[in-house]
Amino acid sequence: MISPHAMSASAREDALAPFKVGLLGYGTVGGAFAELLDERADEIERFNGRRPVIVGVLTRSRGDFEQILADSDLLVEVMGGIEPAREYLLRAMRAGRHVVSANKQLLSQHGEELFETAREHDVRLRFEAAVAGAVPVVRVLEESLSATPIERIHGIVNGTTNFILSEMTAGSTYAQALAEAQRVGYAEADPSDDVSGRDAAAKMAILARLAFGSPVHLDDVPYEGIEHLHGDDLEYARELGLGLKLVGTAERRDGGLSVRVHPTFLYSGHPLAAISGPFNAVTVESETITELTMSGPGAGGRQTASAVLGDVVSVMTGGARPPAPPLALKLIEDVSSAFYLHFDMTDQPGVLATVTKVLGEHDVSIKSVVQRGMGEHARLVMVTHPVLESSLREAMRRVGEFDFVRAEPRMIRVIEEEFT
Amino acid sequence: MISPHAMSASAREDALAPFKVGLLGYGTVGGAFAELLDERADEIERFNGRRPVIVGVLTRSRGDFEQILADSDLLVEVMGGIEPAREYLLRAMRAGRHVVSANKQLLSQHGEELFETAREHDVRLRFEAAVAGAVPVVRVLEESLSATPIERIHGIVNGTTNFILSEMTAGSTYAQALAEAQRVGYAEADPSDDVSGRDAAAKMAILARLAFGSPVHLDDVPYEGIEHLHGDDLEYARELGLGLKLVGTAERRDGGLSVRVHPTFLYSGHPLAAISGPFNAVTVESETITELTMSGPGAGGRQTASAVLGDVVSVMTGGARPPAPPLALKLIEDVSSAFYLHFDMTDQPGVLATVTKVLGEHDVSIKSVVQRGMGEHARLVMVTHPVLESSLREAMRRVGEFDFVRAEPRMIRVIEEEFT
Repeated sequence: MISPHAMSASAREDALAPFKVGLLGYGTVGGAFAELLDERADEIERFNGRRPVIVGVLTRSRGDFEQILADSDLLVEVMGGIEPAREYLLRAMRAGRHVVSANKQLLSQHGEELFETAREHDVRLRFEAAVAGAVPVVRVLEESLSATPIERIHGIVNGTTNFILSEMTAGSTYAQALAEAQRVGYAEADPSDDVSGRDAAAKMAILARLAFGSPVHLDDVPYEGIEHLHGDDLEYARELGLGLKLVGTAERRDGGLSVRVHPTFLYSGHPLAAISGPFNAVTVESETITELTMSGPGAGGRQTASAVLGDVVSVMTGGARPPAPPLALKLIEDVSSAFYLHFDMTDQPGVLATVTKVLGEHDVSIKSVVQRGMGEHARLVMVTHPVLESSLREAMRRVGEFDFVRAEPRMIRVIEEEFT
Repeated sequence: MISPHAMSASAREDALAPFKVGLLGYGTVGGAFAELLDERADEIERFNGRRPVIVGVLTRSRGDFEQILADSDLLVEVMGGIEPAREYLLRAMRAGRHVVSANKQLLSQHGEELFETAREHDVRLRFEAAVAGAVPVVRVLEESLSATPIERIHGIVNGTTNFILSEMTAGSTYAQALAEAQRVGYAEADPSDDVSGRDAAAKMAILARLAFGSPVHLDDVPYEGIEHLHGDDLEYARELGLGLKLVGTAERRDGGLSVRVHPTFLYSGHPLAAISGPFNAVTVESETITELTMSGPGAGGRQTASAVLGDVVSVMTGGARPPAPPLALKLIEDVSSAFYLHFDMTDQPGVLATVTKVLGEHDVSIKSVVQRGMGEHARLVMVTHPVLESSLREAMRRVGEFDFVRAEPRMIRVIEEEFT
């Protein structure tokens, strides 16, 4: 029988041993992480009794995975991409190692496999840095989940597109705004993952899994980007009191779950409306807490590294467990939203009546209208009350068939004024 | 020697046993907590393997503390007040019980004693609900502390005063706004703890302890309330682009720590400027994360109960440890701020020159001025650049001695435009 004295001595030794971290990847985030860990090691040791040390680094040109695995208590993965990151994380957890990852692509495509492996081997798997940089939304969702039934999450989870939309709101064209984002380092040379909405979709898949406990794969998340937005949409919308953001939504709908990303107009009272520049923000709604908003810088090496180090410290202090096994909710694709509609038409009598008649036949009810003559043609801009997307699309298809319609009608979702 | 098999069987039994919660206090929050726990017990059990159950309730008229203590794994204290809450929490921790408290008065006045007892007996002590209701600022500070050196916290941590100031901004007098707050239930019949700033000071003492690791007692926090504000200050300030909030500040200054609460003007770009109505919000600044803002409803039985239940779940899953032993920082009282100044004067030539000369002699430099004649007298409103408070007070004392000054000059702090 182990004596209480022996156990306590062993616990004491354990408390004094350094906490050994293996680092997979040494790009911007990896380098910033190593630097930050070094700066903060004294304070972490004072606070937690153990000192974190990096025992090995794996890059394409140096380091040996087997050796790092053997030497570590925890592996930090900041390589990005699916393979070999996935293989390394699975092998680490099977060997009883805790892991921290900043890899949103991996978690949104292989999350269930990773979570299951963590549960099976009773290790921690943490990934705060995968969503919204230093904004601790993963932690808050993990910890709040069982105490609070969440109804809806809205998120601005891509700083690049939020910066571009802020510039467009200030008058730039899309091309100018993108060029400026690239110049100041907020957008990559190939910006397609950001501007297409795919990056935001990956993050929303992860948040939806945490908030609703239902498995959501990146492929389950329909997304629209910002590449096709017109500057004049932003101008008309401003007249209607609306501002444009790329919003990810995950919400309970009709007993199921809807997760999606698209450009969205917000009224000025919405907590996300004030978020501008390369910032991220997430709003969590539930009957119990009503509404909680968190905002901060979306990315950047130091910010992401800070989130990764926070996860490491959380594992050292015995943080949250991996998500419970999933309870699948039905994914709802056809959801009801309010819409902004933009028609470019020949200016002739009866046009407004004709359009509103067709809309009415498809249960599309109009909340506000701006019509403006432009010489021989006219612009008609409307905001609808909530309508099922399939009904609206059918109505728009029919309106598009009229001869007086000069260009394909545009439609952008609007989040109703719920926060006033 | 305990066989691995036996240990695992015992662990399994433990995992299936209910998690026994004793409830001290059954007012608005206690009742809402019991109801919420009942609603969420299934989900919590699914997620954590153990089901929380309330094994006893102590009120003035029923329940026996000794019996509840003997029957519980954890005690929830929602009684409020210092005694007997303090005595119950200390006894519970000494008996090896985890505790959760929503008691800001107790934590801001006896925090070190409670933290030390929790460390000594290796039990959890959690208190998310004591500050900012459902906004998880305590958790985020606890978990982020060692990874991120925090420079400054600004908080709107009293929903009653934020509601009153929102009403005053919309044109109400202080008396009207207070009456409205009482009518809708945001202010108590005796509102002095809220409107004096004392409630906010208690919360800032708790946040400062978490963020900076230095012991801060409620008595260490100078505070000013909103009772003496004039509606016309809000009007003039609006002309200068400023909005008024009751802001708590805790920040590193000159190698020490400054913690204080007072009415404060904010420029519209500040993340706290948009927080209106009975909401709370906290902004955390650090070099590493730049700036993080969290906002949500300040209080309410369900919201507070949700924070308490989140703490209970966090203990069940092995959440954060009590704060490390304190490292005392020197408390700095005389700090530098920008100020709004309001002078009510006889309208005579040379007045502006005289006032600015005296201000200049005390290193007060002016950023913007509004002067307005009002028949025989004039109002002079200024915003200064940052100046040491003691210098400004001396300058104001000297200005107050001039015959042309018709009323005591007013001064309100301004947070500089740092977020643009």
